[in-house]
Amino acid sequence: MKFLRYGPQGSEKPGLLDDDGAIRDLSGHLGDLRGDVLASLGDLAGIDPASLPLVEGTPRLGPCVGDTGKFMCIGLNYADHAAESGMAVPSEPVLFMKATSAICGPNDPIIIPRGSEKTDWEVELGVVIGKPAKYVDEADALSHVAGYCVINDVSERAYQIERQGQWTKGKSCDNFGQTGPWLVTPDEASDPQDLGMWLTVNGETMQDGSTTTMVYGVAHLVSYLSQFMTLHPGDIISTGTPPGVGMGLKPQRYLKAGDVVELGIQGLGQQRQECIADG
Amino acid sequence: MKFLRYGPQGSEKPGLLDDDGAIRDLSGHLGDLRGDVLASLGDLAGIDPASLPLVEGTPRLGPCVGDTGKFMCIGLNYADHAAESGMAVPSEPVLFMKATSAICGPNDPIIIPRGSEKTDWEVELGVVIGKPAKYVDEADALSHVAGYCVINDVSERAYQIERQGQWTKGKSCDNFGQTGPWLVTPDEASDPQDLGMWLTVNGETMQDGSTTTMVYGVAHLVSYLSQFMTLHPGDIISTGTPPGVGMGLKPQRYLKAGDVVELGIQGLGQQRQECIADG
Repeated sequence: MKFLRYGPQGSEKPGLLDDDGAIRDLSGHLGDLRGDVLASLGDLAGIDPASLPLVEGTPRLGPCVGDTGKFMCIGLNYADHAAESGMAVPSEPVLFMKATSAICGPNDPIIIPRGSEKTDWEVELGVVIGKPAKYVDEADALSHVAGYCVINDVSERAYQIERQGQWTKGKSCDNFGQTGPWLVTPDEASDPQDLGMWLTVNGETMQDGSTTTMVYGVAHLVSYLSQFMTLHPGDIISTGTPPGVGMGLKPQRYLKAGDVVELGIQGLGQQRQECIADG
Repeated sequence: MKFLRYGPQGSEKPGLLDDDGAIRDLSGHLGDLRGDVLASLGDLAGIDPASLPLVEGTPRLGPCVGDTGKFMCIGLNYADHAAESGMAVPSEPVLFMKATSAICGPNDPIIIPRGSEKTDWEVELGVVIGKPAKYVDEADALSHVAGYCVINDVSERAYQIERQGQWTKGKSCDNFGQTGPWLVTPDEASDPQDLGMWLTVNGETMQDGSTTTMVYGVAHLVSYLSQFMTLHPGDIISTGTPPGVGMGLKPQRYLKAGDVVELGIQGLGQQRQECIADG
């Protein structure tokens, strides 16, 4: 199934996508796509989408999961991207955090922070946790996953690298984490390690990769992170980006107001963002 | 005023400390110490504590603020601590994130992760945001602060430094963020840049410092961070630790099961934690 959240920011309602690509209102069955409900999305499989109210028009889509406690990101998790960044492939996964306040809907604008000159893009496979995970084995790890989604791990490279240690500063700006359009359950998603992924800027292809070249796969990441801390329902792991970010181009290229970024992952839908200046 | 949250984990109730050091139940006046209520704590000043129900016994204390979205930490913010860590004082504040799932009550145990050999302590002044802050000036920054509290920024040094880039991995383990006992409003707290702070392990003094030697003060930090992202009510800034952490000792010294850590900050109360092994 493909779950989603629609409506104004902060008051999104749960929905699902029917076979015709229309939104059906799920709010008669659950309050929100968050917390404990994520462990039992399979229970909703018996619902006939046609029995749900059809949502008219084209409402804004919110992030496809609510109340995320941790927005964990894996750095340099594609060998080619590490190379373009001038960094070595790490011997174990690199973890950094994005602020959860950066999370927004899949088509919400990219807000270029005041004074920013190096706002960049990163298409990533997002993994949403469905049930608590602590010290889980790799063999059991995927049973803790509620679903998958597209994420744009928007990054300000000067803030990330040139403004004193720790990447989080360049990863956490408002609207730096477009999430969705859909939360796709594992039974419907294809093999998470064999998904094509792409990103364009003003129609020009910048990233054209596949999760096949991910260094540390989803099961390994869930297990690995769970050795350090409990993963809770609604937590997101953004699993790294393939080559083609602006920082890796020669010359480097960054986003400016008016640019349009589009990105997608096979089977998980796509996003479209306009870039706007902040204030 | 001194606000607090008491009761079992996940179902804490709001309270305040009366002049006799007893807990008074605030749940008749507000649902929880979180979100929008933090901007208007001053409105509660007119309440006579004696009019509130007295809470009998000595309930567990929870973190003094609920629903924290961002747990932001400032690294190397005391010159002497930077020196003992073998690192330079940064030319601007170093930001890293702790997972919000690490947040726990002030007297909840320090859980030493499986296999950890380098679990360390850090007494820190915590700043709780009361109203949204974006691009705020330093002169206006303190008006966005709901109050102050004690934080133990528990840190696993091998995970932080030896396990591939980015400190967050060693900062985010479960129960690595004791927060409280009280949220002390600015009118009651003394000058946040002139507070004595201390930490003992098994009764032996390890840290004995003062916020007077903080490199980047509270107003600067609130203003600085708000240039990168919106700070929301309930967000916490942990402002760094003075010298005396285990990593800085010669030889280094780390926590083991059975150790007792006590820490406090002038006017903000104190914490006591037993160290236990995980699983």
